Amino acid sequence: MNLPTKNYFIHRLQQGTVREAIDCLVVEEPLEIRVNGLALGVVMRTPGQDFELARGFVLSEGIVPPHECQAHLQTLTIAWAHDEFGLEIPNVLLCSLPALTPAHLRSCQRQMLATSSCGICGRASLERVRVQAPRLADQFAISANALKKMPADIRGHQMHYAATGGLHAAALFQGAGEIIYACEDIGRHNAVDKVIGLALLHHSHPLSDFGLWVSGRLSFEMAQKALLAGIPFVAAVSAASSLAVDLAHETGMTLVGFLREDRAAVYTGKHRLR
Amino acid sequence: MNLPTKNYFIHRLQQGTVREAIDCLVVEEPLEIRVNGLALGVVMRTPGQDFELARGFVLSEGIVPPHECQAHLQTLTIAWAHDEFGLEIPNVLLCSLPALTPAHLRSCQRQMLATSSCGICGRASLERVRVQAPRLADQFAISANALKKMPADIRGHQMHYAATGGLHAAALFQGAGEIIYACEDIGRHNAVDKVIGLALLHHSHPLSDFGLWVSGRLSFEMAQKALLAGIPFVAAVSAASSLAVDLAHETGMTLVGFLREDRAAVYTGKHRLR
Repeated sequence: MNLPTKNYFIHRLQQGTVREAIDCLVVEEPLEIRVNGLALGVVMRTPGQDFELARGFVLSEGIVPPHECQAHLQTLTIAWAHDEFGLEIPNVLLCSLPALTPAHLRSCQRQMLATSSCGICGRASLERVRVQAPRLADQFAISANALKKMPADIRGHQMHYAATGGLHAAALFQGAGEIIYACEDIGRHNAVDKVIGLALLHHSHPLSDFGLWVSGRLSFEMAQKALLAGIPFVAAVSAASSLAVDLAHETGMTLVGFLREDRAAVYTGKHRLR
Repeated sequence: MNLPTKNYFIHRLQQGTVREAIDCLVVEEPLEIRVNGLALGVVMRTPGQDFELARGFVLSEGIVPPHECQAHLQTLTIAWAHDEFGLEIPNVLLCSLPALTPAHLRSCQRQMLATSSCGICGRASLERVRVQAPRLADQFAISANALKKMPADIRGHQMHYAATGGLHAAALFQGAGEIIYACEDIGRHNAVDKVIGLALLHHSHPLSDFGLWVSGRLSFEMAQKALLAGIPFVAAVSAASSLAVDLAHETGMTLVGFLREDRAAVYTGKHRLR
């Protein structure tokens, strides 16, 4: 049984001091949902209540036609997939909905083509990202002082957030903490894509001289986007997930969470903090 | 040019009073990104900097191989699609990356199969949801008093949030404000799928006697998931997007945002508040 949380060794910055600490992180893991043998989605989820997740997914993603939902749900069975030795595969669920036709399921598959809120996920893609990503440069560094001034500076760039209270932002900064590019979007993933796309108008890939700041949490896909852009330093307002920290460990990325005026959690790559 | 924000007439609950108000909402609209003619994703985004978004997307989703990224990006051209009369289609972007093969692009398309953070989006799906969704029941109602006690009650169910500070939650409540089911997940969409899936173990579809509470923002996909489950009332901690409010208007759903102990924004369906 995969647990929903996991402890990590991190460093805490607080009032100018750095100390080692243990932090409890949310576990993030891919779950592939197959319906009648066809893979209909890979969700990045926190383990637990996975059968409930699959049941809700087939309904709320419209795989089961809503007008005859109850009849379909009564025939739904869900089971873990097993490998050739009969052992449970913890991240693949097999759903059976006997009344759905292959043609209907294929049309669902087409309709579920990725949106910005996804990214490439699942284990196969994880491998692909790890192998293909550029090596992160080590020369980028920033002082704790510059880092802690960032939240206040970024507010000046969140024009539409001030009006709506409902918008994410992403910014690229350089080693002295100065914000060079900032973008807003309703989707965290879009805000990151926009700011990377904006920088690539003026700079070559990889963007090794930049750090990325994001307004939300640091999930796997945020770290992955930074990695593919060659950005070695990522800071966020909220918590990091287990998988984001694992990816950062493996690739030598610096991850900072809960960045506030007076504190921060340094998950990985402390050497880039002066 | 589509604007990033839009004004809506809403009602504000504050200290026991209800008053009409104008609220500035974030615009949420689908954008289809086609690469060499192949649709590689529909992102739900806030209009503005769309070319930057597309440039970042082809890089950070791994469509352009990272190790030869710069060469590809130098050949990238981006343009709006045009309809048969030569008019710009505001939500379809055509990207050209001449060095990418059709086989590579098809493999990207396969890898981008939906995750939980997406939902069905895009205009075609929008139509499908509107047509297929069950009619929302009108008998569900809740008092403003019961609603305002909910944030405190829900904290008691956010077990892992207390430990990690990095988890979303979704809950189903009934007319007296009592919370019946609650689930947590790193993804907002998963938390909603889990709580709907849990309720469907014990109740028939549609879930007309329930309201849904979500810990984040009310984007289109949250409203859509509630609609497909037949849930007539949705409340959230943060802001609603334009598209969520539009869908709620059309389908007669009640949407409440910024729900706190002392206030709330009622976007649509005020008749379900006693």
